[in-house]
Amino acid sequence: MQLLRDIVCSGGGSGDSKAGFSAKKPVFVCVISHTATSEVPGLTVAGANPEMIKYTSAADAEFLYHGHCKCIPAVPATPDGKPTPAVITRAALALASMPLFIADSGAKVKPQVPAISFGLQPGGNISIEDAMPLHEAERAFGYGRLLGAQLAMTSDLVVVGESIPGGTTTALAVLGALGVDARFRVSSSMPDNPHKLKNAVVDRAYARAKGVRAPLEAVARFGDPMMPAVAGIAAGAVEHGRVMLAGGTQMAAVLAVMKGLGVPLARVCIGTTSYVAGDRSADLAGLVRQISKRTPVLACDLHLGESSKQGLRAYADGFVKEGVGAGGASIAAMMKTKADGRKMMKIIEREYSRSIEKASVAEMAATGPPQP
Amino acid sequence: MQLLRDIVCSGGGSGDSKAGFSAKKPVFVCVISHTATSEVPGLTVAGANPEMIKYTSAADAEFLYHGHCKCIPAVPATPDGKPTPAVITRAALALASMPLFIADSGAKVKPQVPAISFGLQPGGNISIEDAMPLHEAERAFGYGRLLGAQLAMTSDLVVVGESIPGGTTTALAVLGALGVDARFRVSSSMPDNPHKLKNAVVDRAYARAKGVRAPLEAVARFGDPMMPAVAGIAAGAVEHGRVMLAGGTQMAAVLAVMKGLGVPLARVCIGTTSYVAGDRSADLAGLVRQISKRTPVLACDLHLGESSKQGLRAYADGFVKEGVGAGGASIAAMMKTKADGRKMMKIIEREYSRSIEKASVAEMAATGPPQP
Repeated sequence: MQLLRDIVCSGGGSGDSKAGFSAKKPVFVCVISHTATSEVPGLTVAGANPEMIKYTSAADAEFLYHGHCKCIPAVPATPDGKPTPAVITRAALALASMPLFIADSGAKVKPQVPAISFGLQPGGNISIEDAMPLHEAERAFGYGRLLGAQLAMTSDLVVVGESIPGGTTTALAVLGALGVDARFRVSSSMPDNPHKLKNAVVDRAYARAKGVRAPLEAVARFGDPMMPAVAGIAAGAVEHGRVMLAGGTQMAAVLAVMKGLGVPLARVCIGTTSYVAGDRSADLAGLVRQISKRTPVLACDLHLGESSKQGLRAYADGFVKEGVGAGGASIAAMMKTKADGRKMMKIIEREYSRSIEKASVAEMAATGPPQP
Repeated sequence: MQLLRDIVCSGGGSGDSKAGFSAKKPVFVCVISHTATSEVPGLTVAGANPEMIKYTSAADAEFLYHGHCKCIPAVPATPDGKPTPAVITRAALALASMPLFIADSGAKVKPQVPAISFGLQPGGNISIEDAMPLHEAERAFGYGRLLGAQLAMTSDLVVVGESIPGGTTTALAVLGALGVDARFRVSSSMPDNPHKLKNAVVDRAYARAKGVRAPLEAVARFGDPMMPAVAGIAAGAVEHGRVMLAGGTQMAAVLAVMKGLGVPLARVCIGTTSYVAGDRSADLAGLVRQISKRTPVLACDLHLGESSKQGLRAYADGFVKEGVGAGGASIAAMMKTKADGRKMMKIIEREYSRSIEKASVAEMAATGPPQP
């Protein structure tokens, strides 16, 4: 079913429940976080090199607010230079004049922006240790619930995104613990999805703590600090309004946690890019169907394959694909402004040009051209 | 001029500019902070004893969210048991379904709620040291500006309150540095306003750094970490809408900082209780007139002198008077719901009864009655 041009909905039962997801006055909140699981070599490319990964979520938050980063000199990128999806998110927020809030649930580097502190440490590497103590997961859920309720009072749709490198591996682990068959179904920031490596990490995690089934305990053992925060924000938001989990298969894990905790899901949807929804190395719709048949999955086609910018075309070729709530923020912006995917692409190109190309030129001017 | 029953406006030029301050969809943000200036004996009663003062602002934030405190066993109170104005604020927020945000700009104890971190340390004791480094004041102003802009996008009136013990002394110091004659004009949480002690502290502060006139430098030398945060939030909010500085003479200092920084003041008002506005030991209206003749001062009469609760009647007798944005939050709630002061008083009594009287009974049940 198509809601607006370039937004496609799968799942979600009757047409009525889909039509309910409009956005006249959306608000966007991005949860930034870190998990030492991301430091397992080969799991993520959310950083120019392994040493940079810990800066990624803070730099994303800074980019959203300032249009440039403060904790690192450039924008977060993959080792071969594909830029962070925060470029898309920022373009969407600006187009739709969407208010932005940052929640810090275990970021390793603190961003130079006003961030709502959940008081959490970065998550542990689940292949060798728990992600966090149970009481921290409970606290993050509780804080999220308080925050989500306030945000929902100010808006008709709370869009919740995330920036946490390595998050699909912890998603896989939590989904499996909660009875969702997710092997070979979680997405990746790389075209060549390292499923076997993810499965191996998760097997080691399960070996440490067999039989854990309670949702927040599964998060504490096998997950990451983003999950209880996003689940809590969503749980608080549905008390007053509607919520869009903005992300890919990581948000399926959050949905499973919410379901396990008995949070009503009638006013929850998932919003993502067509690059995740159509990812042949993953199965977002199938994961969501296993958790909640009535939960709509909205996906926007941002026509990035038609872009004149190489760094954006890469998204259509399976690089990066999603993150920092890019898909959900775009959907909310498209709903609010009636922009279609091609118009979004043009606006994203302008943001790309301003923040990435001009920054590169400035850097070159300062340091001289790259040597052959 | 009377806007609504029990809300009186003084100052503010023409009737039109006053009528602009409506509140159909207000949002409330409380900045919590600490200054070692509050530890000067005799300056404040915002705590049951000197050792408790550092918990006051965190406990206020917890009370607003949870209806009880977590970092201390009871609610913040004066040494003789007059309860925190957070009781009033919470009643107003609930009546008007007003969204609540907490900003932590130098709280000494961290509240167990989601709080927007400004990354500041508690302020120094201005009688012996600077309140903070200049770059921290600048950062708090910048973070505030970012936050205020987001909040204003969600609402038609951003109400900014504060909880910082000892704040009228730092207000006096900053007002004087910015050329506002404030001696014997700042208010107090005590009926017997310790003007001479405040003046002596301020004289010692000025002796350390003569001739400081730049607004944020005055804040850094003589102020407290609440001021740049509130001034920044207000500066960001007026970019998109209207703002109410919710408090007494401390907010006159914030207004002076904003004026000094060139922030446009046309969409700024001050909102407080009649207990501050009518305080004969102070002169809020006169202070504001010296800074900006066109800035309205709204004051609500909450009829607490008619209350059946002793702890509330004390407000009308000059104890506590204001704080935690109680007056401004009440005004916004009255504007949104058309409640008058007597209706507010009844709602505040219910909150008092629920949170203070029942808590005391529970405490007595646990510990036995007080011994004669």
